[in-house]
Amino acid sequence: MSAPSKTAAGRFFEDFRLGETLRHATPRTLTVGDVSLYSALCGTRFAVQSAETFARAIGYPQSPVDDLLAFHVVFGKTVADVSLNAVANLGYADCRFLKPVYPGDTLSATSEVIGLKENSNRESGVVTVRSQGFNQHGRLALEYVRWVMVRKRDAAAPAPKTHVPDLPASVAPAELGAACPQIDAAAYDFALAGSPHRWGDYATGERIDHVDGVTVEEAEHQIATRLYQNTAKVHFNLLSESQGRFGRRLIYGGHVISLARALSFNGLANAFHVAAINGGRHVAPLFAGDTVFAWSEVLETAALPGRADVGALRLRTIAAKNRPCGDFPARQGDGYEPSVVLDLDYWALLPR
Amino acid sequence: MSAPSKTAAGRFFEDFRLGETLRHATPRTLTVGDVSLYSALCGTRFAVQSAETFARAIGYPQSPVDDLLAFHVVFGKTVADVSLNAVANLGYADCRFLKPVYPGDTLSATSEVIGLKENSNRESGVVTVRSQGFNQHGRLALEYVRWVMVRKRDAAAPAPKTHVPDLPASVAPAELGAACPQIDAAAYDFALAGSPHRWGDYATGERIDHVDGVTVEEAEHQIATRLYQNTAKVHFNLLSESQGRFGRRLIYGGHVISLARALSFNGLANAFHVAAINGGRHVAPLFAGDTVFAWSEVLETAALPGRADVGALRLRTIAAKNRPCGDFPARQGDGYEPSVVLDLDYWALLPR
Amino acid sequence: MSAPSKTAAGRFFEDFRLGETLRHATPRTLTVGDVSLYSALCGTRFAVQSAETFARAIGYPQSPVDDLLAFHVVFGKTVADVSLNAVANLGYADCRFLKPVYPGDTLSATSEVIGLKENSNRESGVVTVRSQGFNQHGRLALEYVRWVMVRKRDAAAPAPKTHVPDLPASVAPAELGAACPQIDAAAYDFALAGSPHRWGDYATGERIDHVDGVTVEEAEHQIATRLYQNTAKVHFNLLSESQGRFGRRLIYGGHVISLARALSFNGLANAFHVAAINGGRHVAPLFAGDTVFAWSEVLETAALPGRADVGALRLRTIAAKNRPCGDFPARQGDGYEPSVVLDLDYWALLPR
Repeated sequence: MSAPSKTAAGRFFEDFRLGETLRHATPRTLTVGDVSLYSALCGTRFAVQSAETFARAIGYPQSPVDDLLAFHVVFGKTVADVSLNAVANLGYADCRFLKPVYPGDTLSATSEVIGLKENSNRESGVVTVRSQGFNQHGRLALEYVRWVMVRKRDAAAPAPKTHVPDLPASVAPAELGAACPQIDAAAYDFALAGSPHRWGDYATGERIDHVDGVTVEEAEHQIATRLYQNTAKVHFNLLSESQGRFGRRLIYGGHVISLARALSFNGLANAFHVAAINGGRHVAPLFAGDTVFAWSEVLETAALPGRADVGALRLRTIAAKNRPCGDFPARQGDGYEPSVVLDLDYWALLPR
Repeated sequence: MSAPSKTAAGRFFEDFRLGETLRHATPRTLTVGDVSLYSALCGTRFAVQSAETFARAIGYPQSPVDDLLAFHVVFGKTVADVSLNAVANLGYADCRFLKPVYPGDTLSATSEVIGLKENSNRESGVVTVRSQGFNQHGRLALEYVRWVMVRKRDAAAPAPKTHVPDLPASVAPAELGAACPQIDAAAYDFALAGSPHRWGDYATGERIDHVDGVTVEEAEHQIATRLYQNTAKVHFNLLSESQGRFGRRLIYGGHVISLARALSFNGLANAFHVAAINGGRHVAPLFAGDTVFAWSEVLETAALPGRADVGALRLRTIAAKNRPCGDFPARQGDGYEPSVVLDLDYWALLPR
Repeated sequence: MSAPSKTAAGRFFEDFRLGETLRHATPRTLTVGDVSLYSALCGTRFAVQSAETFARAIGYPQSPVDDLLAFHVVFGKTVADVSLNAVANLGYADCRFLKPVYPGDTLSATSEVIGLKENSNRESGVVTVRSQGFNQHGRLALEYVRWVMVRKRDAAAPAPKTHVPDLPASVAPAELGAACPQIDAAAYDFALAGSPHRWGDYATGERIDHVDGVTVEEAEHQIATRLYQNTAKVHFNLLSESQGRFGRRLIYGGHVISLARALSFNGLANAFHVAAINGGRHVAPLFAGDTVFAWSEVLETAALPGRADVGALRLRTIAAKNRPCGDFPARQGDGYEPSVVLDLDYWALLPR
């Protein structure tokens, strides 16, 4: 007797309804164990997240969890309901970090379907969701919009009415900073943080090559992706992927973001908080054995209304594989320089 | 001057005495660090172990450590005294989880020799031990019987009298549940747990393909096995193993059990507690690069005497390598379908 | 617009000034997560660091962090300022552990330049630093001297005056033990610790083959090295290293020390505390895929003035790759037996 109905096959494009809210499984308590593992897998060195003493000195009640770790944990929960049958993760927008997450906090997640658009071949469609991560007090810790191309179970199934949501090109400065307590910038020790450069030392248009490169191993990205309880099979199942598009396992795009962010320490050591992600695209796949490099451009600098302690830099961080970024590879013709794997647009906060 | 006597060479078959109790080295305090690493290595997603909020809501004082993590830690301690010179780990029986283990608890272990039987070639023999894991209060947290084939130091050494212990084919339902507090099933949130299926929704004979596959890397199984302080050289020493039976490192069988259990979440998301292991056999070796799949059959359903909160499913979970389990590979002729690596018979508890 | 000045390029030989003190970036709070990961990467099994119960029974307020984990974290901080442009890490001396480090403690580090000597080719020079690791109370937890060969930015740059510091051949017994509280040796359970051999059971000249071997994977040493926030590119960047001296990534020498120390448990299970490192040399590089073995010789035994609880063994531990150490490989002719990778001289404490 077989009971396939007990197994989650994931949703197909025709299963999504505009406006519905999906409540995702497996709440997750984040611990110092997760922080340690995240740090050892990605190589992050920002002082606020690394040292209780540093965080407390400037006004945090304790060291917060890395923003991207919280993001990946929320993202991981959404996979089983949103993207198990995804062909491609197309983009992110309007991601805002709204409460600091501390070790001991428990995150759970929901996603609202805010956009649906069938592809012209009728074999798949684009699903846009707004995912929200809540802490154990029911407070919204972060939210973001993501759109993915999802297969249809049956190409003949009727498509829902097309709805393409309006999304902001970037998060407004006035919306930044909710997850960052008022800090005592005078207590911020720039030598301990690794760089003398404050918010005011960066200028629009400035480009920074982050210099260092890091080679990724299969075990590393698998351990990281499981840490987030993200079960997308493209990351784990060599047997199926060896028959797939790339002939091998694909590295979770979020791991690429975390590696690029960790590399960006060299040049942006005081950009201690990711306040928002305006947009992000995984331009090309990354595979084990590849070496990741990154560079950043300052797209915009912004004061935060009512705050003299921190300022925001809008950064574009581009990650490339198997080539240093001293010449700032980016778009090329209609697409990207072939080595580019990530084009990320985000707001980071620095002490003023 | 050489002092080989300070180095543990492990016991050989003729060193074991029926009835003796071995006190194993290196007590181990389990922490949230171990929980995080276990989760990231195996991919477990059961809500009770993942979220403090979930565990507390249903009646646990805090999130318990995964049952199999506690098992592996106890098992790891026994290796140096029991199986350092083992040719093969033959089987488990009568494994019962008797106290929940929480982060902060310290486990230590002893093993009583309960069976001895020399092989007819006189070069090895089967040793059966009952191993017990105790917490820091001296309370028995779990126990199990294991038998291994151990080499003799000297084939001419006299063999001990043969004794083959009587072992139960399965743990009786009345013996289940000691490590599971009375839970408030009304507070158990099935959406958060990832499945609507309660104990009563499963029927004897039902088969579930767990669908997903996971490829194992050398670094992953080595890190996991060291996490348990299990030092069996077949898992770590490529130099010696390249000259050995398989020409490569063998993955610790317990890691296979944990991967199969994690995969079983897809279909058994509410089977939150392993209450007992009736028996288990590592049918064939698993190596790095292999992709593990699993399926389960419900062998039996049982109410627990005096408990209306949870019920037990006796499950047979079979793991296979490098082939999906949609057709439920199992025994074949006198042996097993060649891809099968694990045949595990255990009791899990689910909310009623 | 390019801003290379925001990126740390590391110091070159001509940038160092005798007597200057470098304050290193990124303080680090050590947690049970780090302890778990360290243990799972290196395989350490010493009871004091493994079990709260064991540590408290003998007089520690809690389980201390492994001495070498604390060492690696301090070392990691120094890399960006001292050895980013190092050609070779030449040696250590006068390393003393002065305060126990517990989970929750935050370490920060400084280095004083105590020696400078240009090489005759004028392309590089030897920099000697005394690095100190402080806890969150500003107390000195450990210190050590290290010398590295550092490239010059410009061979024509004037060299600083040569100064070669006087370093002790070994730390004096009277200086040992500051990081080890008075222990209750009667409460030290030798069976739980894994060996009956006390301090007095070891004799000068005694040699111990630690028997076991462990193969290292790229993911393992990369994760370990990032755990220490050590960013030396030779460990991580396959793209650049494939063009380099060895054609591949080099394993952090500290990981080799930790592996050798973990292997030494088999023969030195009660050597629970590394009190000092007299000297250490990375004789040859270790690469992923290599299998590490180790043996030790007791160079000296010493009572500690005023302490009847513990005694010290001066140990020479040699690690070799891809060959067991039953015949104690060591120096050979002017150099070393070709398999030797590490020659470490240190003091360990054992109960009397």
